[in-house]
Order: sequence, then structure tokens, then C-alpha cells
Amino acid sequence: MRKLHLQDRKKMIHNFNAGPSIMPQEVFDKAANAILNFRDTGLSILEIGHRTALFQSVLDEAVQLVKELMKLDADHEVLFLHGGATTQFFQVPMNLLNENQSAAYLDCGTWGTKAIKEARLFGNVDVVASSKDKNYTYIPKGYKIPADAAYFHYTTNNTIEGTEMFSIPDTGVPLIADMSSDILSYETDFNRFALIYAGAQKNIGAAGVNMVVVRKDILGKVNRKLPGMMDYRKHIEAGSMLNTPPVFAIYVCLLTLRWLKNQGGVHAIEKINKAKAALLYETLDARQGFEPTVAKEDRSRMNVVFLIPDPLLEKKFIDACKEQQMVGVKGHRSVGGFRVSLYNALPLESVKALTDLIKQI
Amino acid sequence: MRKLHLQDRKKMIHNFNAGPSIMPQEVFDKAANAILNFRDTGLSILEIGHRTALFQSVLDEAVQLVKELMKLDADHEVLFLHGGATTQFFQVPMNLLNENQSAAYLDCGTWGTKAIKEARLFGNVDVVASSKDKNYTYIPKGYKIPADAAYFHYTTNNTIEGTEMFSIPDTGVPLIADMSSDILSYETDFNRFALIYAGAQKNIGAAGVNMVVVRKDILGKVNRKLPGMMDYRKHIEAGSMLNTPPVFAIYVCLLTLRWLKNQGGVHAIEKINKAKAALLYETLDARQGFEPTVAKEDRSRMNVVFLIPDPLLEKKFIDACKEQQMVGVKGHRSVGGFRVSLYNALPLESVKALTDLIKQI
Repeated sequence: MRKLHLQDRKKMIHNFNAGPSIMPQEVFDKAANAILNFRDTGLSILEIGHRTALFQSVLDEAVQLVKELMKLDADHEVLFLHGGATTQFFQVPMNLLNENQSAAYLDCGTWGTKAIKEARLFGNVDVVASSKDKNYTYIPKGYKIPADAAYFHYTTNNTIEGTEMFSIPDTGVPLIADMSSDILSYETDFNRFALIYAGAQKNIGAAGVNMVVVRKDILGKVNRKLPGMMDYRKHIEAGSMLNTPPVFAIYVCLLTLRWLKNQGGVHAIEKINKAKAALLYETLDARQGFEPTVAKEDRSRMNVVFLIPDPLLEKKFIDACKEQQMVGVKGHRSVGGFRVSLYNALPLESVKALTDLIKQI
Repeated sequence: MRKLHLQDRKKMIHNFNAGPSIMPQEVFDKAANAILNFRDTGLSILEIGHRTALFQSVLDEAVQLVKELMKLDADHEVLFLHGGATTQFFQVPMNLLNENQSAAYLDCGTWGTKAIKEARLFGNVDVVASSKDKNYTYIPKGYKIPADAAYFHYTTNNTIEGTEMFSIPDTGVPLIADMSSDILSYETDFNRFALIYAGAQKNIGAAGVNMVVVRKDILGKVNRKLPGMMDYRKHIEAGSMLNTPPVFAIYVCLLTLRWLKNQGGVHAIEKINKAKAALLYETLDARQGFEPTVAKEDRSRMNVVFLIPDPLLEKKFIDACKEQQMVGVKGHRSVGGFRVSLYNALPLESVKALTDLIKQI
């Protein structure tokens, strides 16, 4: 629920988009101001040089806030890179998997499947488990990760299928996670990961930048020669300024990270995220005609996926959402149904409005 | 010269930054409004889904405007990609150069040198000419491009060294150009190129997106398997939406392209660019103590590079620029001296203010 700050409009909008997605109103306000006059310089954030002290302070503070919010140790570096998580699907194996090696992958959704496909270009891929048999509506358990795997890769939250994996697998091999859609939404031991990547457009900022957290000791061990822009070590050396970074997108990350810190950080937002998800799932479970698709123990707190099998009720729901200014409830084009995304910036009030609608419809 | 639209500030700023660089004031105004309320939807441009009709219309119009402004034929596709021109340094040979083939490169500055380094990872590189002998202060002439080269690559404008190449080499092999810093600044036959790439942050938009124009018939001929995000064909198929695109950065491109069209397009802006460059070079040539570094026939209209050998005069100039709100005149950290950038959005008035200062100092 957000009030527009423009004087002539007062309508409330509930934005359940899966990404790009809702962001805090104060981020919009500050971002708009920075475009007109950045830090009282008289210049727009869009026209300042990236190698100025001005932008360096933006980047430094954003990196520092990530370290603080994720409680990262000194071995982990924070990078802001171009290309989105989809670029990481191949950048990870390009940097970490030799041709004669094998990497272990968990196949629990669309994004994991894509990551597996790209990894196969660089070495062997051992798919240790898959939930494809049930359309990825659960998270596989009880699989073994080979001790000689170059690394183990999984997706912590499956944006499209609505599953989420909260426990970190116990393995001796380097852990790598695509956390695009649930990073910074709950407390976990981020230091257990050798590499984490996340497109910014859910919980970190807006579309156009990708965050990578990497433990330095896993780098430099691959045989192949890497293009400069694909080499994590070069980005670390250059402090995410190997080339012109996406200046504005990084500034929006900074604003979002500051907002998160002011909310009380990850610990505080986790409580709210749990309350939002609990309220919605309880309402869906209690309401006949609405059918969550995911196994209860694997339900995502970020993306709630459900079906309305009755076409009449479905239409009624769609119309009611439209009338009540609720946007982004439609399921992903590949799976249909409905998907309601509850990222950090979505207020509890929006979930209350939606659950009231579901109860009353 | 720009007036700030914020009520409490009236100062004028002349922004000679080399990139990210000055943009039209109306672009800032419209971009800021779109962050608060995009097209009267009540939503921010930062929170709309990229697979909505809303964003699709932004992307379609931006692509259409590029085609119109560059007068592209039907064989050329326009892509908006992640990663900046530096990613193109390796994406180009990855897509177009087999290991046993040779590509011809012109070495006329920092960016060309970097492109050559990356191309060597994928095949043979034949450096057909270089101006390194004189610190890249001229454009080599009279070189031969082998008829069996996979392609010929050059940088049309050297942002750091201040040289620019207006004539298109006559060769039977596919022409590839890095036009990051002079695209859309003068009329040329863009259809003669097989591939053109340009980081947006000079004449197309703000940092965070890269434009690629590619003739489809050169693709699909390389032997190696390409990661999805590196394959131009996949981006063409997906209409620049292979993954979440940098939504806001593309919107800023659209605003900038519209502005350019309203100025009268490339033909009109070329006249102004010629006038700006002529005024500045004439002033520098006439003024003792200011020394342009580039051979007269190869001088860039986008980046004017000069030295002030006398430390006293140099300091006086720096102080005067500061006092008169002229920013971005310092040379690139790798070459020193001064560099004044005259991109499309820089008004003639700013050049007049600077030349007045140079004459009077």
C-alpha cells in the first residue's frame, strides 16, 4: 500500500509483482530527487562520472551495508556487476569448473534448470536431485552431494514455482546459491556460502544490476583463460569498476539497503515477512476454491503460488483485484494460475487487503 | 548550461564530463517523474514488470527510434544488452571468430587495445595498424585489411586520446565498430556495418545499458557453443528480453532518443556538434599556452584533449573552471592534461562560456 506523492492523485496501489517489484516509497522519492539534483551538487545522478568521489562514496556505502546486513566475514567480497543472475548461470562455472571436473546441481525449478544448462558448457554437471516429477512443487530432500564435486549449486527461492529452501545443505564442497528472489529476506549464515548471486530487482534495488558475494579463496583455480569482464578477481581488484558500472542502479541499491537497515535489518524484516506469508497461506488454506500448489513445508515466503480451478471464481477474483488496485497477481506465463509476491518492501497492509478480498469474495 | 528545476537553486552548471555525461534537462525531468508515477499508472517505472505491455511499448519505441535515427535497413537488428561496451570486447569475437580464423583490428587507443586483448582469447588477431608510436594522437592510414579476415574491428572515437575516424574503411570483410562515444553524433552510413556497439552513457542514455546493432547474416557461423546470454541470436529471438532487462536505463534511452528526434535528428545535431568543436579547437589553436594534442585531421568532435604546459596557467584555468561551475574538464587519469567532452546534449552555450574563459584567462 503506497500513497502517491503527487498532489493530484490519492489512489492506493498494492503491487504484488514478481520482479521488477514494489520498492519502498522513500526510495522512489530519493531516487527522483537524485535525478534532478544529486546531493545538492546541481548535477543529476545520471550525469556524474563514475570515477568521482561522489559515486565512490555511493558504491562504498552500498558494499558496506551489504556486509553489515548479511554479517559477512572478511573473506567475502561484495561486487555489483552487470548482466543479471542469468549471466551468473555461466559466469559461475566459467570461473569455477574445469572441463574434467564435475559440479553438483539441485534441479528445483526454472532457474536451476537454466543454470544447469549453462554449466554443461564448461564441465560435467551432476544433478543430485530434481523435483521435476511433480512440476517443481516441492524441494527434494535426502540427496547426496559427491565429496569431489567442484561445488554445489542451488536456487534458494523459486520465484516461478513458489518453493523456498531455508536450510543450508551440509556439505564439504563450496556452496553456491542463486538468491535472486529471497536474499536479505530472512536471517541465515551467509558466510557458509562460497558464492552468492542475486539480481537486484526483488529485495536489493531495481533491475539493471546484479550482486555477487564471493569468498576469494575459491577463485583462480580454473584452467581456462577468462575474458576480463567475466573474471571475478578482476572485478574485486577494480572494486566493481572494471568498466562503467550501472551508476543509477547501484544508487537505488544503496537507498534500498539504507531503508532495510532503518527497518531494523534482516532480523526485523524476517518477522514481517513471516507474518505476511503466514496470513496469506492461512487464508488460502481456509478458503475453498483457492488451492496453493506447493508442499506445505516448502512454501516460499516470497512468492505464493495458487490456482483457482473454478473459472467463474477465477474471473471474479481477477476483476476484484483490478477494482481494488491490486497489480501483479497473475502467475508466470510458463505455469499459469496466480502468484503473489511478498518481497521486503511489500507492507503487511497489502497482504491484509488481499486476504480480506479472498475471504469476502 | 542548465537551469535546475528545483525552486531554491538557480545556478548554471556546464558539464563537460566524458561519460557518464550531460543529458538533456527534459530527460532528467521526465525520468524523475516516471520514478514517481509512470504514465499515470500510479506505479514507478522502477516497480513495473518488464513483461508488461507498458514496458514493451517503451522497448519497442526505443528500438524504432534507433532504426529511424540511424536509417537502418531491415537486415539490421537493434538490441539493448547488459554489460557495457567492455562486454562486447569479448562477446564480438566469441560470436564471430573461430579459433583457426583471424580478425583484423585497428589499434588506435585504449579501448581498441582492450578489445584486441579479449579477441586473442578466441582466435588470431591481426593488428593491421597502430598509432601507439605517438601515444595514439592520430588515426593510422593506408593500412591493408586482409581479404580473409573474419571481420575488421575499430573504435570510431577514442574518448581518452581525443581522436575520431569519420570515414568508413573500404573493405570486403564485415565491419565492426565500437561507437560508444560518437554514435548518433554525425551522419554516416550505419548500414555498412555488420555490427555496431555502444555503451549508452554518452549519446544514447545513462550508464547501465549497451546498444548493439547487428546484421543477422553474420551470426550462427562460429563453431563454439555459446552461453545463452552471450548469443546475439538468442537476444534477437527474445527481443532483448532474454532475462530481466535494465528497465529504467532503457527508458532513459527512449527519452534521450525522443529528444534527439525533436532536435531534428542526427543531421541537425551534427551541425551543432561541428559548430561546438570548431569553436573550441579554433580558440585553443589561437590561444598561446593551450596545446591540443591530436593531429588536426583526426581531432574528435566529441572529446577535445589538450595540455597546458605552464603549471601557473594550468592552475589558473582549473580555478577559473571551478569558479564558473564547469565540471569534468580534467583529462583521463591515464593520460593527464585536460579533456572537454562535447556530446550531443552539451549546448553550444557551454562551449561559448568555456571559450570565453580560455580567451580571457
